[in-house]
Amino acid sequence: MDEYIERLKDGSLKLYALEKELPPEEAVRVRRAFIEGETGTALPKVGSFTIDIDRVVKRNIENMIGAVQVPLGVAGPIRVKGEYADGSYYLPLATTEGALVASVNRGCSLVTRAGGADVRVMRDGMTRAPVFAARDVGHARDVAAWVESHVAEIREVAESTTKHGEFREAVTYVAGTSVFVRLEFDTKDAMGMNMVTIAGQKVGELIERETGARLVATSGNMCTDKKPAAINLVRGRGKTVVAGVRLTDAMVADLLKTDAETLVEVNYRKNLVGSARAASFGFNAHAANVVAATFIACGQDPAHVVEGSTAITTVDRVDGGVYVSVTLPSLPVGTVGGGTGIDTQHECLAMLGVAGGGDPPGTHAKAFAEIVAAGVLAGELSLLGALAAQHLARAHREHGRG
Amino acid sequence: MDEYIERLKDGSLKLYALEKELPPEEAVRVRRAFIEGETGTALPKVGSFTIDIDRVVKRNIENMIGAVQVPLGVAGPIRVKGEYADGSYYLPLATTEGALVASVNRGCSLVTRAGGADVRVMRDGMTRAPVFAARDVGHARDVAAWVESHVAEIREVAESTTKHGEFREAVTYVAGTSVFVRLEFDTKDAMGMNMVTIAGQKVGELIERETGARLVATSGNMCTDKKPAAINLVRGRGKTVVAGVRLTDAMVADLLKTDAETLVEVNYRKNLVGSARAASFGFNAHAANVVAATFIACGQDPAHVVEGSTAITTVDRVDGGVYVSVTLPSLPVGTVGGGTGIDTQHECLAMLGVAGGGDPPGTHAKAFAEIVAAGVLAGELSLLGALAAQHLARAHREHGRG
Amino acid sequence: MDEYIERLKDGSLKLYALEKELPPEEAVRVRRAFIEGETGTALPKVGSFTIDIDRVVKRNIENMIGAVQVPLGVAGPIRVKGEYADGSYYLPLATTEGALVASVNRGCSLVTRAGGADVRVMRDGMTRAPVFAARDVGHARDVAAWVESHVAEIREVAESTTKHGEFREAVTYVAGTSVFVRLEFDTKDAMGMNMVTIAGQKVGELIERETGARLVATSGNMCTDKKPAAINLVRGRGKTVVAGVRLTDAMVADLLKTDAETLVEVNYRKNLVGSARAASFGFNAHAANVVAATFIACGQDPAHVVEGSTAITTVDRVDGGVYVSVTLPSLPVGTVGGGTGIDTQHECLAMLGVAGGGDPPGTHAKAFAEIVAAGVLAGELSLLGALAAQHLARAHREHGRG
Amino acid sequence: MDEYIERLKDGSLKLYALEKELPPEEAVRVRRAFIEGETGTALPKVGSFTIDIDRVVKRNIENMIGAVQVPLGVAGPIRVKGEYADGSYYLPLATTEGALVASVNRGCSLVTRAGGADVRVMRDGMTRAPVFAARDVGHARDVAAWVESHVAEIREVAESTTKHGEFREAVTYVAGTSVFVRLEFDTKDAMGMNMVTIAGQKVGELIERETGARLVATSGNMCTDKKPAAINLVRGRGKTVVAGVRLTDAMVADLLKTDAETLVEVNYRKNLVGSARAASFGFNAHAANVVAATFIACGQDPAHVVEGSTAITTVDRVDGGVYVSVTLPSLPVGTVGGGTGIDTQHECLAMLGVAGGGDPPGTHAKAFAEIVAAGVLAGELSLLGALAAQHLARAHREHGRG
Repeated sequence: MDEYIERLKDGSLKLYALEKELPPEEAVRVRRAFIEGETGTALPKVGSFTIDIDRVVKRNIENMIGAVQVPLGVAGPIRVKGEYADGSYYLPLATTEGALVASVNRGCSLVTRAGGADVRVMRDGMTRAPVFAARDVGHARDVAAWVESHVAEIREVAESTTKHGEFREAVTYVAGTSVFVRLEFDTKDAMGMNMVTIAGQKVGELIERETGARLVATSGNMCTDKKPAAINLVRGRGKTVVAGVRLTDAMVADLLKTDAETLVEVNYRKNLVGSARAASFGFNAHAANVVAATFIACGQDPAHVVEGSTAITTVDRVDGGVYVSVTLPSLPVGTVGGGTGIDTQHECLAMLGVAGGGDPPGTHAKAFAEIVAAGVLAGELSLLGALAAQHLARAHREHGRG
Repeated sequence: MDEYIERLKDGSLKLYALEKELPPEEAVRVRRAFIEGETGTALPKVGSFTIDIDRVVKRNIENMIGAVQVPLGVAGPIRVKGEYADGSYYLPLATTEGALVASVNRGCSLVTRAGGADVRVMRDGMTRAPVFAARDVGHARDVAAWVESHVAEIREVAESTTKHGEFREAVTYVAGTSVFVRLEFDTKDAMGMNMVTIAGQKVGELIERETGARLVATSGNMCTDKKPAAINLVRGRGKTVVAGVRLTDAMVADLLKTDAETLVEVNYRKNLVGSARAASFGFNAHAANVVAATFIACGQDPAHVVEGSTAITTVDRVDGGVYVSVTLPSLPVGTVGGGTGIDTQHECLAMLGVAGGGDPPGTHAKAFAEIVAAGVLAGELSLLGALAAQHLARAHREHGRG
Repeated sequence: MDEYIERLKDGSLKLYALEKELPPEEAVRVRRAFIEGETGTALPKVGSFTIDIDRVVKRNIENMIGAVQVPLGVAGPIRVKGEYADGSYYLPLATTEGALVASVNRGCSLVTRAGGADVRVMRDGMTRAPVFAARDVGHARDVAAWVESHVAEIREVAESTTKHGEFREAVTYVAGTSVFVRLEFDTKDAMGMNMVTIAGQKVGELIERETGARLVATSGNMCTDKKPAAINLVRGRGKTVVAGVRLTDAMVADLLKTDAETLVEVNYRKNLVGSARAASFGFNAHAANVVAATFIACGQDPAHVVEGSTAITTVDRVDGGVYVSVTLPSLPVGTVGGGTGIDTQHECLAMLGVAGGGDPPGTHAKAFAEIVAAGVLAGELSLLGALAAQHLARAHREHGRG
Repeated sequence: MDEYIERLKDGSLKLYALEKELPPEEAVRVRRAFIEGETGTALPKVGSFTIDIDRVVKRNIENMIGAVQVPLGVAGPIRVKGEYADGSYYLPLATTEGALVASVNRGCSLVTRAGGADVRVMRDGMTRAPVFAARDVGHARDVAAWVESHVAEIREVAESTTKHGEFREAVTYVAGTSVFVRLEFDTKDAMGMNMVTIAGQKVGELIERETGARLVATSGNMCTDKKPAAINLVRGRGKTVVAGVRLTDAMVADLLKTDAETLVEVNYRKNLVGSARAASFGFNAHAANVVAATFIACGQDPAHVVEGSTAITTVDRVDGGVYVSVTLPSLPVGTVGGGTGIDTQHECLAMLGVAGGGDPPGTHAKAFAEIVAAGVLAGELSLLGALAAQHLARAHREHGRG
């Protein structure tokens, strides 16, 4: 080991080149030892992992030195009544934020007691939007027109790059001389970013060749990936999912220790008026918490928590109770590819019955999206309920209200 | 074990109550076995963890069944020239997205070759904004006025709840009968959400008592936590950090295989015009990726990737090269509390020399924010450079440009 | 007159009922006299108008007491090279803001000297989005599905309400139990809000009848009318128009007294980075000024200045000069209906050759949109140029730059 | 006249130079005649105006050819209970959109019957934000720090440029190397854009001189003027005004022909959920309509309708009725300067008792803001009521509900 470390120190061996000379396990060990030396920090825990290293260094990470362990808890069971997920589930939640699992768990009980969460996937499609530089505004118009009149050709080129993906549509946007072509695909059980990037590159080159507009970047940010963007709320990206549950007044009283009016008011003043006043793209209490915890547990891309945070939570007053819902306009998820095949993450997906590709393709990813949405609903219900109960308790105590 | 599982099955024992009867390690094992049975899924890898269970079940998670292992790589060294972090660092990145570490690593080399990243923390403060219901618009005005004229009293109540935090300011917003009081604190080395929530609760009760406005919820979403919200861009939340580096034309040519004009154009059409056309709050290429990977590695709250994604990346053409920068208006981070004390996460912070509380208090968290911002800069530089190089290569090939 | 005023005073005659008893001119005179008495304010100038009162009281206003006179200036001629407007135009600008006409006029000269503005209408469609209350999330999905599978029926009902309008598409959005159906029409030369509202009402009733979802409001704010909303940037509303012009370095120097780099920098730091940092939906200097002045002159709905303000201005550095553009994603305009038939407004439209319906229908409104966009381009160019010239002058003076 | 027209035609006389050779009235006549010739359009009505031409050509317009007449109606009386406006008012509304005045008028009756609108000005300040280019991120930080520690000096320079304005604060924002300094002033009865622009220019030069950062533009778009921008919602710009009114169930039934629940639901699904789903900055029904009509009537800058459109409308269910409110975070208004002195506009301000400067200064502009907010409330109430009544009627008819 010392020899390698010497070479790393004197620069004759690059840190990322270790795997070329050593088997993965050895390479990771040498690299960690080198980092320990350079930073003067012992890393025994980071070095103490059990996931399959061969797979990981090929697909998931470079310059590996070990693994971070994120505590995993379960919430549930939660009854989910989706079109793809129908049954009772224990949600795997990887988090370091105390009280989160307990809170979601409470929401799961409530949803289940209420008969389960209705969930629907309203839309599904992953996007990539290359940007082109046109010569002038007239040329920009022509490029957009070319795209609109050559959909079959674009589809052919796009689908030549993928075995699984299906091209859906190409929507064009112009801003001065910049032309954006937002390509959408059904990526089945894959989250699909890689798939659409490869397809986007090929389609981009086609458009460049045919129109003479310069392909400036395969992603022109109208995709929009990992940034909060209204385009994803309006057109959807990944799964657009909605979950809802009806609670009777008795359930609200017994399980949430509050009443319907208070629950409605908390949602109204906080999630709707408060978010409006803050100029937010998210009208919810803490959707991102549940999205982050399930995403890390299940090998999703955690940067997509950004998209997941743009949820809208509603509480309708209905006869004899309330109807509570969450709407996630943009939830990019997959059950194959990315981090889904790593051992611990794979086990989490397996717990939900959605590991690997579904039959027919796409059904696992959609089922997973439905389960996540139900989890978000549970989380919202629990936190809103807690806030409402506190408010009601104070109201009784301080104002003699009620 | 069977006995407990039976009781869990028949409902006489609650899943979350296992720790009351069994030592943590045992409780986790029984719970996992139960979940394995219920879901028909073996969870050997989830059960194979080495982090200190006692600490974790007390502070970080409920209903624990094990841990998820996220591969950890390093990028660097990167030279950081901040006011709190000054030196060379290896960035710990926990991710499952192949190519990310390699990309950031390349950016780190470039930053370091260019002499390092200038980084500055422009602002620092964690917020919580309770919402109150006033009787009418006049009352709402009075509540806001009361707050503005009782800052000393609010400070006293707020600071009575915390040993470390310092009250900064209370800003009021009215929307009809809803009054929001955005309380800001210097939370030193803690990310501070718990601290400000407890203080916010007490201050909320004070305001309720003194003004007669009902405290509807301790968080009224003008905080704004874990939702993309313009208020955080405008007023900041957590750390507001800016990082920049100057690259000469030679560096751009040698290391990025492109030229200054192309780099400027990619940033202009993609990060600025593209994000504008998408109505985005993020004007960057993939800041969220680096934020997510460092946050998971270092025990930060991964739902705060949402805030981290609202970065602005700029590329200025300057004499003889370019000046590239990233601005993160809202980066909530801490080096104590939350997941920072878990073994693997603690080692990652230690690698950066910022584990635990700083001396003076607050300096570790600020140093960490500076390092993350430098990492985001490296990531942006690398991806923009790759896009620009591809564009330039195509331009040479297809248009005979250059 | 006194008799009527007495009855108005004692409440036996309503202010709005005067036209039922008196000819319009008389009614307006009595009403004005009454208001003069009630407010103790003489209104001789308000009473001194020459527009045809009969038409106005039927179509444009109730409770009329007179008219406000807005000064009208002209800028131009400006050379417009659109698909519908091709020629030289004098822009009618009704404004009270000194220097605006002069500024636009300077921009017009510049555009004309540069050979004219290329303008293209990228998209055209007016929208109305009724909102329905579904019973639950599953019902919401069914309502959306019903709409998607009954487009022909919706078209038939929609088009039965209008002689001129053509139904384009119905896009559904769900948020919990709220279902929004965004109906889009080609409204030809009319701005079309009335047309789509009537059609929307009928379609709404159809959907209510067929799906059992309650029609809560004919407009559910996803239209979105007269509020800044990203949906209009993404999907367009009214006309989506882009205008651009190429300026040589010599023109920039001679006419704007600055240079290309400075012009690029002003646009970059102000219109792009500044607007991004402010979390704005408008990335321009003062598009709203030109939109407002042409809209008031030409009888458009001035509340639609809101939509017009969401323009993106770009300045590209190109070989030997700059290419400057403006993109207006949402510009609702018409040349028939609304205020277009009032005498003075009609004359302004006539000056542009676009008064009344075009042949074929729709061409006048599109031509008008092109002219407005060219005017916005002139305004942007002039203001950016002025800022750049000041900067350059200071740079020469203070820094010895250049 | 012919001689001048010949010279205009052959280019030896510029259109804008006519006033140098002729008295205003003559100049306008010649110019109009020239435009009539060039465009082949008779402009008799445009030429038929009675406002004082001398004043107008000096302050409000260049290249004048006449005036546009906008029909003026009144709504009211409306009872306003503000801190500055307290009494009954007839609202002057200049509009060409039929039914608008009638709708607002109905709302005024309702507000008045309910005892009047409570209105409060929550905040008041006009802003201008120059943008500077710093050398690097460290320099940017230093520039911001310089501003923060030289407030007294900035105030002195700022106030040296104005007799009336008072400097309030300077808030700095950094985005990479761009530094924005948002200067806020109390501009008393003036809307204040000119005042703050002049002050901003001087302060900008001071900062440039003292810090070495280049002043790139006096407005860096973080002001933000005439673009929808979240910064104005968060920090306010112009007046931040809130108006509200309580309606009993009986009033809702008698005057609006609906019930409280339906009114609440329409506002909830349309103004809150619908606007959220559209990613809007405006959560209201048609605030822009009332703002536009009062602004044009009263000589305000109609491009500021953009800011006025970002209102939030709320309907709270309260014991025995509803409490309805509107919140306008950013309403730039003035009663001196701009178009306020033009004859017809001045009469409209006089009708409201707020023409010219107030005593003490600032009270007229604040009173006007209160009246406008009350008018917006009336407009919202009327439209929401109409939608709710239709819904209720359909519900009775079609569902046998109620």
